[in-house]
Formats: sequence, structure tokens, C-alpha cells
Amino acid sequence: MEHQDDLRDALHTEAVATDVPPAEADAAEDPDHARLLARLRTALPEGALLTDPEVTASYAQDMASFCAAGRPAVVVLPRTVEQVQHVMRTASALRVPVVPQGARTGLSGAANATDGCIVLSLVKMDRISEISAVDRIAVVEPGVVNAVLSRAVAEQGLYYPPDPSSWEQCTIGGNIGTASGGLCCVKYGVTAEYVLGLDVVLADGRLLRTGRRTAKGVAGYDLTRLFVGSEGSLGIIVAAVLALKPEPPAQLALAAEFPSTAAACEAVCAIMERGHTPSLLELMDRTTVQAVNQLGRMGLPESTEALLLAAFDTLDPAADLAAVGELCTAAGATAVVPAADAAESELLLQARRTALPALETLRPATMIDDVCVPRSRLAEMLDGTRAIAQRYELTIGVCAHAGDGNTHPVVCFDPGDPQEARRARESFDEIMALGLQLGGTITGEHGVGVLKKEWLARELGPVGVEVQRAVKHAFDPQGLLNPGKLF
Amino acid sequence: MEHQDDLRDALHTEAVATDVPPAEADAAEDPDHARLLARLRTALPEGALLTDPEVTASYAQDMASFCAAGRPAVVVLPRTVEQVQHVMRTASALRVPVVPQGARTGLSGAANATDGCIVLSLVKMDRISEISAVDRIAVVEPGVVNAVLSRAVAEQGLYYPPDPSSWEQCTIGGNIGTASGGLCCVKYGVTAEYVLGLDVVLADGRLLRTGRRTAKGVAGYDLTRLFVGSEGSLGIIVAAVLALKPEPPAQLALAAEFPSTAAACEAVCAIMERGHTPSLLELMDRTTVQAVNQLGRMGLPESTEALLLAAFDTLDPAADLAAVGELCTAAGATAVVPAADAAESELLLQARRTALPALETLRPATMIDDVCVPRSRLAEMLDGTRAIAQRYELTIGVCAHAGDGNTHPVVCFDPGDPQEARRARESFDEIMALGLQLGGTITGEHGVGVLKKEWLARELGPVGVEVQRAVKHAFDPQGLLNPGKLF
Repeated sequence: MEHQDDLRDALHTEAVATDVPPAEADAAEDPDHARLLARLRTALPEGALLTDPEVTASYAQDMASFCAAGRPAVVVLPRTVEQVQHVMRTASALRVPVVPQGARTGLSGAANATDGCIVLSLVKMDRISEISAVDRIAVVEPGVVNAVLSRAVAEQGLYYPPDPSSWEQCTIGGNIGTASGGLCCVKYGVTAEYVLGLDVVLADGRLLRTGRRTAKGVAGYDLTRLFVGSEGSLGIIVAAVLALKPEPPAQLALAAEFPSTAAACEAVCAIMERGHTPSLLELMDRTTVQAVNQLGRMGLPESTEALLLAAFDTLDPAADLAAVGELCTAAGATAVVPAADAAESELLLQARRTALPALETLRPATMIDDVCVPRSRLAEMLDGTRAIAQRYELTIGVCAHAGDGNTHPVVCFDPGDPQEARRARESFDEIMALGLQLGGTITGEHGVGVLKKEWLARELGPVGVEVQRAVKHAFDPQGLLNPGKLF
Repeated sequence: MEHQDDLRDALHTEAVATDVPPAEADAAEDPDHARLLARLRTALPEGALLTDPEVTASYAQDMASFCAAGRPAVVVLPRTVEQVQHVMRTASALRVPVVPQGARTGLSGAANATDGCIVLSLVKMDRISEISAVDRIAVVEPGVVNAVLSRAVAEQGLYYPPDPSSWEQCTIGGNIGTASGGLCCVKYGVTAEYVLGLDVVLADGRLLRTGRRTAKGVAGYDLTRLFVGSEGSLGIIVAAVLALKPEPPAQLALAAEFPSTAAACEAVCAIMERGHTPSLLELMDRTTVQAVNQLGRMGLPESTEALLLAAFDTLDPAADLAAVGELCTAAGATAVVPAADAAESELLLQARRTALPALETLRPATMIDDVCVPRSRLAEMLDGTRAIAQRYELTIGVCAHAGDGNTHPVVCFDPGDPQEARRARESFDEIMALGLQLGGTITGEHGVGVLKKEWLARELGPVGVEVQRAVKHAFDPQGLLNPGKLF
């Protein structure tokens, strides 16, 4: 958490220093700006508006590296649906772009401001309206922090699975906007599978209710899912009905060491092919394991080429782990170490959770990729990524949600070295090209934002882009909602 | 199966007799018709076109009662994507409406022809292209029959859960078009949750590929889910990537008798609130139980007001059933009878599967409703439905996917008695009004089609309908795809 805060501060400093020109003109001197503020103030309390350029600049971008960010005209922090409607009516009337934001923990620049935009931060709309154990739902506002919701439902014996690594900071609205994933997805799926219904303020201020609070429902087009992962480009989510699961038993984990990533991937395929349902199936390559050890003195085995972590939250996890351990050994594991208890399991997971911060210590900067391939192609993806790292003479550590084929190659480099920065960018692109070539997608869970716009077009192809644009136009004909993202 | 075939024959006879005027004019006398056929024939083999009016009339409607159906100009049975593209290009050029069809087992009239339309039957595109145990996916054409796919994947230790009651006839394309459910949904969810990617021929003949074959992916708007449940109104599905599960253990069931539907619903709520995950949780009211006994000599307990069936496909289903049996007893069950083995369990499920055919024997005709409410409101829904039956002096049997709050009130009546037919229609509407009042939806799994168009507008409200129409327009500006359905 502290680490991420530091990183955010650094990014903001950078944003102010490199992306955002200093506030030279007083807002009052720009009549358009003055008119925007005056109109916003007609139905917003003064505390809901931030106009100091130094403050608004701190809302300019999310956690993605090297994504362009503009200078907001104003930051609005609404507390009610009516206030959001007022903002959108104002924006539509004055043709001012609106960039919705949660906690800005995203990794693709989807929350980055554009010049002169209204940043619409939903973090003050943070009420949990309802939790029902019988209906297995929660009704929340978009600014509720993921961990706050997770703890609240756990108190009632319920489980909200999506657990992005930023879960202590990120908001449910942001999770929905980016369709975020996490460690649990191999068993429990991504955020999309937990969104039953939404209240959405449309570009022109109309309030749309989608979906339902029932377990099933097929009344009309599934607009709920259309908003999930739309990165704020179709409307402003102001409430969500979320599906919950019963809380599972505590998970038990094992660690298995492999002499090659290919052998570890063979184990992953065998585990899934045999019908096992792990609650977690993660892979860390040698670079990542060493970085984790350096950062946290974790004592992971450094001689291994690939460390596989598997966990089960079943009634008899030890039996499941024993079966999985045998499959690991058959695939060539040199050591299989089951955790003795839940506490030891938690330590293993802790090691995995520090992978990204650990890799970030290796070089001054990182770019984290998010390619997902069919799990049958995972070995090729990892071998190919290693070859790319060698060709570009770069350190690229890989951690992967291996059970889902979702890899996070982390390109570690020095942006102060233009040659190395160029090589980093090129390697990042080559990794995506490899993912597409292997039948995968350029983004398993981080989204497109600014970072992967060009690559989205390559993945979707011309017809795909045309249709996506037509959908965007149907919701936002003026193009005011989070412009410049996705396509 | 035989029953359903009989019913279809009856419906088709009825269609010919009541809905479709006799073929008076030879097709060749209508220049528009001749031009349509000539243009279709430029890229379709002769066997792919059906033009005999008696034959085409037999494609006029699905299994829904009392939904208007028109007279098709032609039925096309393509075998390739290119042929579908040719049909859509032809339809767009000549502005001829297109009604896509699978097995026509739908219950809302969504597959009903309109006058002068091209019926586009996808049943000949019935290849299973791929089944992968490692990637847990199947790639299929739309005409693959649900049961054929289910058996094919079972041979590889895999499981395709969606199991609508017509699973021996219905096609995957139809399942996707209507987002169909089944008995397994309480644990495994509906069809929507198993569709990863689609190939879709758009209204103008362009081929769109949506989604992915990976476990995760968030590249752009989720168009896959937009097509699921769109009832053929946005494009023609020509291929699907489906997610599979590992085959679970055989399920074990129990039956519990209750003195009231309210007591049975209390048990349902307790089971779900305590975190159980049954693979099936079904309710039949007294009318349904008696009808099932009459039809199949099932020997179910006729004195019960509500029979609850619960099943588990866990590793220790007997233990789960014991716990659930205790909750049933605590809620007032007068008898709890666990099945001795899988065979006895199958008999119980067989009884449930005959509920609809059994209710259809009570009166000359039925209308099956499909209201889904939050399960906490299920008791009110069932009590209210009984009150509606009494007020309208009708026989209404109810079977319900109780664990999901999805009820199927079956209004049994004589269409030859205009008074009774009017009361049936009014009671049907009152049941939907009650569902909405209880926070539910007018359709849990059967779809909107022609049958519930007016009610869809009531459920969605004006903004909802405006947005749905805007989406439709973005995909089908000429309004040629399955016109007159949904809204």
C-alpha cells in the first residue's frame, strides 16, 4: 500500500513535471472555463468542486506508465446521482469532455485526464446500500473500495471474489469499468461475472437502469455487460447490484519448483485437463522469484526456473493438493512443498502478491503487459517472452495467472536511457504480437485505455472497430465520455 | 421427445390452419419474390432453398402459444458462413426481413416468421469444430443440438451445463439467441456464462468476430454478451466458442414435502442463506405434482402442497443432502426422502422434467410464464400466483427453479372458450405485473420474442427502451433482422 502510494506520488510529480504545463492563466480569465464552473455550481456544493490547478493536476492520471495525460479544467466529486446527472447535462450542453475516475489504480491510462476535461471522481459515492445473504447480492455505489466490500460481505458469511492486486485501494466502479480480474479468477472468474445490474447516468444526463437483482433474467439486450469493461466511455456507473458467493473454506496452497517454464506449463495443462478446480494457479519465473526474495526476504528457492503456486479452497484441500503435487512431479517438478496450514499458505500468496512491486525495484521503471493466451499455448508464450527479452537485452520478469493463461510480463528499464526505453517499448509490442499470434488477447484484465489503443485495433480488425465505434456513437454521439480511450 | 414432436406438429397444423393464409399465388407471379429467389440462387445450391408454401409454412413459428406468425417468402438452410453472408447481403440489398431460426423450441415466438421474410434456418450448420480439455472450450456451429454437444464433451470428461428442457432438440445457436437456462442454473448459471466468443454475420453481410478463446479477456466492449439473448435481432451467429467445466460427480437428490408453498420457500431461503450450493433446487406445487402423477404414474405424494427437489453433485452429496434435509424439516417439511442412489435421483428429476408436458394435459392449451423474482420474494410470488388463479377461476400449475427464484406458472385453459381464453391472458399479465412489483423480471430464461413485447417496455421503462432501440439501430439500421421482436 505504501509502495503504491509512493508510486502514485512519483507519477503525479512526473505528470506535473512532464505532461501538464504550469497553470499560467487564472481560470477566471478564460470565459469558457468560468462559464463551465458557474454552471456546475448551480447544483453542486462548493466542496464538490476542485479548481486549484495544482490539485486538479494530481487527478491527471492513473498508475500506467508512459500514457499521455492532459490538464483537467475541474475535478468534481459528486455525492448523489442527481449531482452526476447535473454534471453530465452541463458537460453535454457545453460540449466539455468528462473523464470518470475511481481510485486511479488502473494500469492502462483509462482514467487519464484530457485537456480541459471535467474529471468526475466517484470516490465520495461510497455507500454500501444493501447486503442480502438470502439473495446473495450487494447493492453498492461506485466509490466503495473493493476491500471494504469484501470485508463487509465476509461478516455475513459471503464472498465477493474479484481481487485485483490493488484491492485495498481500487473501487468497485473502477473494477467494473475495467472488468478487472485478480488471483481468484481461475476458479471464480472476473468482475464481469459478478455484476447483475447497474444504474448508469448517460452522456445527456438521463438515468438508465440495466439488468436486475434476480439470479436470472433475459429481458432485452444485456446492457449491463456492455458497460462492464467500457472504461467509462458509454456512461457513468452510479450504482451496481453485485452477485455474491457463499464464503469458501480457507485455501491451502503448495509451491512446486520446475527446471523450466515449459515444464511448469505442462503441469498447469495437466492440472486443468484432469478436471481440477484450483482457487489459484500462479506462476513466477526466475527473475520474479529472485526479485521477490530481494524485496521481502521470502526465502523462495532461487535455483528454480519457474515456481508454480496452486491452492484449493475445497472441503479437503490437502487431498486436492496431493493429486496436483503428483501431476507436478510427473511434469518434472524438482520439489513440491505443500503448506502446512492456512498461515503458511498465506505467506506463499503474499510472496506472489509482492511480485509486481518486487520487479519494480529492479530498474527505474517498468511496463507491465497483460497478454492472455489459451492455456495450451502458455509454454510458447513464456518461451517467446524470454526470447524477446534476450533479443532486446532487457530484464523482463514474468508472473502469470497460469491457470487462465494470463501472463504479466514486466519490462524493467531505465527511461533515462533513450535506447533502452525504445527497446522496452518495442519489446512490449512484440509481446502483444506474440500473444495475438498464439490465439490470445492483448489484455486479459488490465484494459486498453491509452496504452493499447493501437493494439486493440489490431486485435479487433476493421469490422470489429467499426462495430465498437457504432456502439460508442449510439451511447455518446458527441464523443464526450472519456475521449481518446479504447479507439 | 415424442410429446414435443407431437406438440410441434399440432402447432404447425394450427399455424397452417389459423395463421397462414393458403398459398393462392404462385411465387413466380410476384416479381419481388422471383427477384429474391433468383438473387439467393446465385450463391446457394438449390437444396438450400425451400419455396413450397406448404413446407415454408411449417417453419412459421416456434413452440409459443398464441403468438402471431407470418408467411415466409422462402426458407434458406445454409451450410457455410459465406452462404449466410450471401443471404444477408441479398436481404439488405432488397430490404427483405430475415428471421433466424434454430430448432424452433422457443417459448416466446422469437423465431416466428413475418410476412414475406427469409427464414434463415441454421440447423444444417451443425459441426462441432473442436473440443479441448486443456483449454476447456468447444468451438461449434450454431445448429449443433444441445444434447449432441453435451454428450460429445462428456466423452472427454467435460461438461456443458446449460440444459433447457428441450435440450434433446434445441440448438446452441437458439440457446445463445435466447440466453436459455435450465435445471442446472442454480449452481452453473445460464447459457450466457458459457459463451466466450462468437462469429456473427451482420445485417449487411460483414463478418464480425467477438470475444476470444482464452479464459479471460477485456479487449473492447463485450459484444459477445450483447448478442447473447438478442433473439437474432442484431446479427446471425455462425460460430461460437463455448466454455466447458470438468464433469462433476453424479448428482444425488432428495424430495421434501411441505404443507404450504410458503414453507417450501422458507426452506429454499434457508438453504441458500446457509451457503449451500445445490446443483438443482426445484419446486412443484400440488397441481403440478398431481398432473405429473397422472401422466407418468410417478407415485409422487399427492397430499403435499409443495414438493421440493434438491440435488448435489459434490464429492459427498449425502452429507449435503442431510444438512439440507434438516433445514427442510426446520422449515416445516412433513417428509424428507433422500434418494438411495443416482438411479433413484434420476427418477425424481425425470418427474420434474415431465412437469410441463403433464400440465399441458390438464386443459386444451397452456401459456407458460417465466417470471423471476429475488428468491427472498419467492413465497410472495407463489402465494400471489395462487390468488390470481382463484380470482380468475383458472387452473395454474407452478413449477419453479426455486433456487433462482425463477417460476414457471402454467396457465391451463380452453382457447375454444372465449371467456376462459380472455381470463387466461389477463391472469398471465397479472403474474408478470406481480413479478415486477416484487422486484423481479418478466423473463428469467424464455425471452421476450413476440409474447412479452409490451411487458419488456414496462420492465425497462422509457429510457431503457430508447437505449435498447439505439443499440438495435447501430447494428441493423434498416431494421431487417427479426423485426417485430423484443420491442
